Amino acid sequence: MGENDESEIIEHHDDEEMEKMRTPRNQSQSFLESVASSEKDGYSSTQSSHRLLAYSDALISIIATVMILPVAHTKFQDNEELKQSIQALLTTKIAVYLMTFLIVTVAWAAHIRLFQVIERIDDTLALLNLACMMLITFLPYTFSLMATFPNNTLGILLFCACVMVIGLIQALIVLYGFSHPFLLNDQIQMPENQAYYKRRILEVIMRVPIMCLFASVFSVIFIQVSYIILAIVIFLPYISQCLKWIRSKAIGGQVEDSPDSVPFYTYHPSEPLRKERVEAFSDGVYAIVATLLILDICEDNVPDPSVVKKEFNNSLVAALQEYGPEYLAYFGSFATVGLLWFVHHSLFLHVTKATRLMGLFNTFSLAFVGGLPLAYQLTHEFPRGSRNELEAVQISCVIIFFAGLFQLAMWVTALFTERETLHPYVRYGGREHAFMLAKLSLYPCVALGTFVFTCVLSRFSTSIFHMMEIGVPFAFLVLRLLVRVALVLLRWLFCPARNDLDSVPVEEEDSQLPINDIVT
Amino acid sequence: MGENDESEIIEHHDDEEMEKMRTPRNQSQSFLESVASSEKDGYSSTQSSHRLLAYSDALISIIATVMILPVAHTKFQDNEELKQSIQALLTTKIAVYLMTFLIVTVAWAAHIRLFQVIERIDDTLALLNLACMMLITFLPYTFSLMATFPNNTLGILLFCACVMVIGLIQALIVLYGFSHPFLLNDQIQMPENQAYYKRRILEVIMRVPIMCLFASVFSVIFIQVSYIILAIVIFLPYISQCLKWIRSKAIGGQVEDSPDSVPFYTYHPSEPLRKERVEAFSDGVYAIVATLLILDICEDNVPDPSVVKKEFNNSLVAALQEYGPEYLAYFGSFATVGLLWFVHHSLFLHVTKATRLMGLFNTFSLAFVGGLPLAYQLTHEFPRGSRNELEAVQISCVIIFFAGLFQLAMWVTALFTERETLHPYVRYGGREHAFMLAKLSLYPCVALGTFVFTCVLSRFSTSIFHMMEIGVPFAFLVLRLLVRVALVLLRWLFCPARNDLDSVPVEEEDSQLPINDIVT
Repeated sequence: MGENDESEIIEHHDDEEMEKMRTPRNQSQSFLESVASSEKDGYSSTQSSHRLLAYSDALISIIATVMILPVAHTKFQDNEELKQSIQALLTTKIAVYLMTFLIVTVAWAAHIRLFQVIERIDDTLALLNLACMMLITFLPYTFSLMATFPNNTLGILLFCACVMVIGLIQALIVLYGFSHPFLLNDQIQMPENQAYYKRRILEVIMRVPIMCLFASVFSVIFIQVSYIILAIVIFLPYISQCLKWIRSKAIGGQVEDSPDSVPFYTYHPSEPLRKERVEAFSDGVYAIVATLLILDICEDNVPDPSVVKKEFNNSLVAALQEYGPEYLAYFGSFATVGLLWFVHHSLFLHVTKATRLMGLFNTFSLAFVGGLPLAYQLTHEFPRGSRNELEAVQISCVIIFFAGLFQLAMWVTALFTERETLHPYVRYGGREHAFMLAKLSLYPCVALGTFVFTCVLSRFSTSIFHMMEIGVPFAFLVLRLLVRVALVLLRWLFCPARNDLDSVPVEEEDSQLPINDIVT
Repeated sequence: MGENDESEIIEHHDDEEMEKMRTPRNQSQSFLESVASSEKDGYSSTQSSHRLLAYSDALISIIATVMILPVAHTKFQDNEELKQSIQALLTTKIAVYLMTFLIVTVAWAAHIRLFQVIERIDDTLALLNLACMMLITFLPYTFSLMATFPNNTLGILLFCACVMVIGLIQALIVLYGFSHPFLLNDQIQMPENQAYYKRRILEVIMRVPIMCLFASVFSVIFIQVSYIILAIVIFLPYISQCLKWIRSKAIGGQVEDSPDSVPFYTYHPSEPLRKERVEAFSDGVYAIVATLLILDICEDNVPDPSVVKKEFNNSLVAALQEYGPEYLAYFGSFATVGLLWFVHHSLFLHVTKATRLMGLFNTFSLAFVGGLPLAYQLTHEFPRGSRNELEAVQISCVIIFFAGLFQLAMWVTALFTERETLHPYVRYGGREHAFMLAKLSLYPCVALGTFVFTCVLSRFSTSIFHMMEIGVPFAFLVLRLLVRVALVLLRWLFCPARNDLDSVPVEEEDSQLPINDIVT
């Protein structure tokens, strides 16, 4: 960590050494001198952007995840009449959650891209960034309005206004950065590159606000068109990349996608995302999801003293027994989120560089992780043995399955470009490889198993689910041992044979062998 | 950041180079070999603890802050009859919030201390740490029970049980660490130190569970005693330090507090806290506080379509105008929290090392920051011009004032030991010094001014408050300019004089001059 401190205020160390050369006693004199000199050079307030980015990541991850709360707070009833309207409401809220998660992660990706260009900040940039964050955190509200009043233009107008202002602030940040070139990435700082990069980056940034301007104009005339425009805006980079790829496959041989060799704002699937920002964002999501349920428990599961007196004969223990399943749900939720974080943590220990495609899978995985509080809310909401209970448990299994599966997809994506993205010792054939695969595949396999079991033994669905929750942490504790035992057994059995990895319980195993053959 | 990646898996790089020496094609063979060798050395899964700690910081900061939500959700009414019972409820909830914040930060400090000893982790430690986190996040619930049923033993028993299990897990972590010495801090790794440190650290850690055991035994006999024991447990390090200090002052000359020169677990006010962990924890608190209000807005301020149809003639704009003050409250809250973060960020840019005392002031400042959502909820809850509105605005001013004041206190504490804690260019007399003081003193001064104004012009209290909110961000933007102009003016007027700092509007200014004289 010592290195961090050093690099943080790298500009200042020169000043510091200069100050040491002066007579140290005569401080008030040198103070006034230094004020004068700071006016000349303008470097005085330059800072590393590290903590600003960590704070932005925390804000964005909280905003992305917290919209699951309105979904989880929807009250469910075993009443057929109300079911229809509640389901409609729930669908709206889930749509808001997913839309928010998607848009906010798009904004986050844009933020990463912006601060890969601008590597150092000063106070003005920090304040501009805060203004930008304020508008991003307001976006979920505009979605709530859109989802509740889909035919009213106000929601979409508010959203477009927010996005346009965010775009303008980003353009302002870029202009400010290029007018103070010492804030920029070293590669861009070179005078021969500056003008070109400035034009290109501003073009990319301003594309979104201009599209939003069109969308807001159309919203007055024909509202469906503006929704379509907005969808195009969000997926524009992906769509254009897909089209390029299809064209190059159809026509063939035309692989000149990036003749300018710009490492920024290319929107390639292999464009690097800063690994530590992906980690910080994921940490934020995992942390807030893990703690969402305790908030509900503290607010709702403390019984009223008068009720305890009347109904439970002053016995607090009896009153709390009512809430038993909710504590179990809390611990289960915390353990699952914690272990999924643990797998993610292990995965990123082995990753040297994250690509855009890995970031996309990470987003999908996190979106499912964000759904976990809902799943756990569901599992204790319904009476034992009802039809709804089985459904709730199965939904939980599906959510866990996909959260784990997209983590596995990240790993497979990393293996495709293992020379750039992975440490050598976990590449296919490295000794950590089998263990990492076992870790990644544990949750998908267990979730799948639980799902199948609950289909067969539907009467014991909740018990099976809770057994799974309690068992998985222990499985993680002994996993290394299990994998070793399996490998040692394999060595004894098939030592001269080449296919020693088949026992590792991973479905993608077969698809990886050819990949590896291609790479090596 | 490149350095981080390098150091993260430092053990592996040796293996990696060894692997390169082998024939790279024969991978499946070397894979089995490496599995065998990993069994021998046991180093294979060692990891840097950096991300584990960041995740723990995020979890703890969310838990510490989130208990303000039940406080903020208490419904206020201008009804004199209900006022009494609501005030009692509110007092209980505020007590729970403050207790949670205090205990959780104590647990966090213990966590920092533990992982200053254990610097590298492996999977087992990561899982043990997750179990520890799960129990820490459960503590707020035990407080809710204690506050609602102060005479029931269940709450205190649950709390003691959690703390004892946390203590046991920490002891387990220490024992595991000492049985794998390569995980420990380099200073402790030396064989001659190990036995001594192990005994001492276990002693300190086990003190708390043993006291809790006593408390839980007493709770059955005489519950007040157990509350007192718990209070002593929490403040034990501070109390013993105070007693030592008083004794040394009274008897005099007995400054041999640490004859053993142990840098860990000393509980000195100058014991270092890892700066990046203080930053991560503070970032978490600021981020969650900044976003708490948007959650409420998204849940409560989307009108029901049927209501809009009936009462507002299908005009969504008219319906939303009802909520006007709440949007203002949101933006005001976000801006205040954001700017307090900005000041904190600027402060820690200049700090090279945080001490325990600075950590304590930081905790106090954060506890007030956590109260901000409550303050803003209050400012829009009451009808214009009512007695309650004035009170609400004044409470908000007091909260902002103390949040800012404790930041200033941190800075003053840092100045006391500026040689160890500050970069040379901000020490008293450095050119950034005046600017930093101006930044730190802006919020306390403005809050104080607003408070005085609202006392005089009580009818316009809300307007004055909102003017302040809107004005402060601009004040920050031009602050550097203002300070420079003031200093240039000063230079013109008193150039030969020595007291050039008087114009900076800070109350502590006078008290700093002697400090600085002592240090230099």
